Amino acid sequence: MKGFFIVFEGIDGAGKTTQARLLAEALIRRGYPVVLTREPGGTPLGEKMRNLLLDPALSGLSPLAEALFYAGARAELVASIIRPALARGRVVISDRYVDSSLAYQGYGRHLDLSELKKINALATGGLTADLTVLLDMPPAAALARLAGRDRIEREEPGFFDRVRRGYLQLVRQEPGRYLVLDGCLDCSELHRRILKAVEERI
Amino acid sequence: MKGFFIVFEGIDGAGKTTQARLLAEALIRRGYPVVLTREPGGTPLGEKMRNLLLDPALSGLSPLAEALFYAGARAELVASIIRPALARGRVVISDRYVDSSLAYQGYGRHLDLSELKKINALATGGLTADLTVLLDMPPAAALARLAGRDRIEREEPGFFDRVRRGYLQLVRQEPGRYLVLDGCLDCSELHRRILKAVEERI
Repeated sequence: MKGFFIVFEGIDGAGKTTQARLLAEALIRRGYPVVLTREPGGTPLGEKMRNLLLDPALSGLSPLAEALFYAGARAELVASIIRPALARGRVVISDRYVDSSLAYQGYGRHLDLSELKKINALATGGLTADLTVLLDMPPAAALARLAGRDRIEREEPGFFDRVRRGYLQLVRQEPGRYLVLDGCLDCSELHRRILKAVEERI
Repeated sequence: MKGFFIVFEGIDGAGKTTQARLLAEALIRRGYPVVLTREPGGTPLGEKMRNLLLDPALSGLSPLAEALFYAGARAELVASIIRPALARGRVVISDRYVDSSLAYQGYGRHLDLSELKKINALATGGLTADLTVLLDMPPAAALARLAGRDRIEREEPGFFDRVRRGYLQLVRQEPGRYLVLDGCLDCSELHRRILKAVEERI
């Protein structure tokens, strides 16, 4: 028995959390055993780390430290939640995974991509998603949804443009791994397309 | 102007914190500008991470996640405290550094040493201590000093023996980097020997 690992990626405000939840609910209704998780977080320590990493009072962390903390939280999530769930044949749906580090710390903050890939290969033991759903949309539109959220306002202009272009670059390198959708589409239309793609592959 | 970087290492209970403080006070009295720090911790985020990592309620973290979190805290400490202080000619004294990860997560928890060295070379940008003081002592004696501390009691028997032997193995590989002292010596005698060695090299 081998599970199926689905990851949602995209910039802040692209709708990942909503679509991950809708997909989980639809799969559960169809009888699939689903484990829904998120990054950073997903474990007791990971959620506490998440609160620290996203706390505006503690901002200004160096990109390298940030990348290592995210990789640590990822290693914990993979070891304690994702791998055991896949081994039991579950469908695992994660809100963010390795590509978030490549897009944010790599393309967004200019950390060396090959170093980031090595750290993450180590952290995950090489576990990759069976399908990555990238919700692509212009930062201005995504950020408008998030108006007032601290984390966004802390970033310099241009950061989310680099992150978005980074995601699209990753897709170009391995198109077969991705389902890229326009995050500006209506929420239920997006959900319909995602569910269709997942059911074709699962 | 180039500072001087001194690290204290040894198993829990070996006296590192006390000797680091005594050395800092003695150097300050001699007119040296001293920055005293510790790992994990030493920065606002690092200290919060320390509380999480050492919280018994959150134990059971995988060794790899632990190593990545410590490396993240180290990257932050090096970038925000240690490098700037050395660049201003300060004497930096740290209670633990890279060798703690090699001894604890490597020798103690059997993580791959070459992977650990790579992660830490990345985290520190290759910054090594000018002098590492290893306070060596039998775990039974060190642990007796710490009776009642949760973290110690959580470790399996043999763990601190492996950590201690790991430290001694590191010394054998690069003896010139270390001052190895018997942690069972009287506190003021230890301090005298450490101060003498530091004054000869500073």
